[in-house]
Amino acid sequence: MPRLSGPTAAVLLIGEELLSGKVEDQNARFLVRELRQLGVGLRRIEVVPDEIDEIARAVRALSARFDHVFTSGGVGPTHDDVTMEAVAAAFHMPIARRDELVPLIRAGLGADLHDRDLRMADIPAGARLIQGAAPDPTRWPVVAVNNVYVLPGVPVIFRRKFELLRDLLRAPPIFTCVVGSALGEGPIAATLDTVVAEFPDVAVGSYPQSDPTLFKVKLTLDGRDEARVRAAKGRLATLLGPAVVHLPESR
Amino acid sequence: MPRLSGPTAAVLLIGEELLSGKVEDQNARFLVRELRQLGVGLRRIEVVPDEIDEIARAVRALSARFDHVFTSGGVGPTHDDVTMEAVAAAFHMPIARRDELVPLIRAGLGADLHDRDLRMADIPAGARLIQGAAPDPTRWPVVAVNNVYVLPGVPVIFRRKFELLRDLLRAPPIFTCVVGSALGEGPIAATLDTVVAEFPDVAVGSYPQSDPTLFKVKLTLDGRDEARVRAAKGRLATLLGPAVVHLPESR
Repeated sequence: MPRLSGPTAAVLLIGEELLSGKVEDQNARFLVRELRQLGVGLRRIEVVPDEIDEIARAVRALSARFDHVFTSGGVGPTHDDVTMEAVAAAFHMPIARRDELVPLIRAGLGADLHDRDLRMADIPAGARLIQGAAPDPTRWPVVAVNNVYVLPGVPVIFRRKFELLRDLLRAPPIFTCVVGSALGEGPIAATLDTVVAEFPDVAVGSYPQSDPTLFKVKLTLDGRDEARVRAAKGRLATLLGPAVVHLPESR
Repeated sequence: MPRLSGPTAAVLLIGEELLSGKVEDQNARFLVRELRQLGVGLRRIEVVPDEIDEIARAVRALSARFDHVFTSGGVGPTHDDVTMEAVAAAFHMPIARRDELVPLIRAGLGADLHDRDLRMADIPAGARLIQGAAPDPTRWPVVAVNNVYVLPGVPVIFRRKFELLRDLLRAPPIFTCVVGSALGEGPIAATLDTVVAEFPDVAVGSYPQSDPTLFKVKLTLDGRDEARVRAAKGRLATLLGPAVVHLPESR
């Protein structure tokens, strides 16, 4: 039971290169920050190889459990680009050429265009094309199927496409307070239990610091209701007594 | 169907802090490199919050599908440390205090020890304690249940514990060749299909470059058999003809 109400999300990174270490993920890292700022509770990240069955199974499971699912990668024209096929399989849809995408591919590649590039216009039948707040038919849209947004793996394009979704995702903000503890996790564990029990709508995190100079444990309180989060922080500070280390507000 | 034979692995990162962006993962990044060097094929990474059901479900599924599973995080003494309970639940085992761990906790914490810290000695009944090649009873072991290795989240300790597992994991090495293509993915897609079909034991990766100055696409060939990987590279270079860009061997 997540203690944060509101919309939930999952991220599915697709690509052998992330599992073999040839490429380091930037897209999940970006979404972690952005979704948080949009008030969307990220509950799951998965990284899978370029295999249709693996991707389809993950898409189906994540789509059923979370409000929004973002996939990254596997949308080019080569043998290891199987995301569209997998998303179609996840929802038992056929793949069909989407005619309105063809001129966008032609315009993007110009003289370099090869027949095979047109495969990028083959998407699940019934997919929505999302253009965002300022629709521009010359711009490549986000392909969405049900609650699954299919985004490309190249980070700079991933970010550009995500901008088209921002307004659609925005939720009430998540409010956070942070305090330090001069005592370690063992001695304060019972105190944390008390706050957790008294504030079921506040998520309490406890993070031992590798450099304990200023404090030994960083304690975070997250919730949708600022007054409740502040009240939980006050209660925690009172219970910690002389062990509390007050920190500047992070956001 | 993975094209790389040999042992497979999955990584399960546990912690709300990774999903909310309070902490950036270092442990999966470390394992991606290390497992590759050990010849273990990493097939899956998952990040889940500190919830027993979520963790237990992931542990059970990953343990059934992969040869090795590594968990990271959730092994301290506070309310959000539920990994041991979840691993126990995944395998329908009770939790029991492991007496030989108690003196290690006492020695580690000294005068700072609190009763609650002893919770860290409560592990799944039937867990193995792994000490590695040079057993040292004063050193905290790796707790393993079946094929699941339970590692702590703090990166410096995570790495230290992983050293105890290295000899146990080592497999035949994975050999890699890399070439560049001066043409984009569309024009070379059919060529890649040919190599993929002719070398079923070689994994071929195709990665468009964000800076296409030297070449437009990076092509990688991975396999257990060096001669086969080299043969696949030769075949690919021949088919690419004037578009091939030869690169120094990466490893």
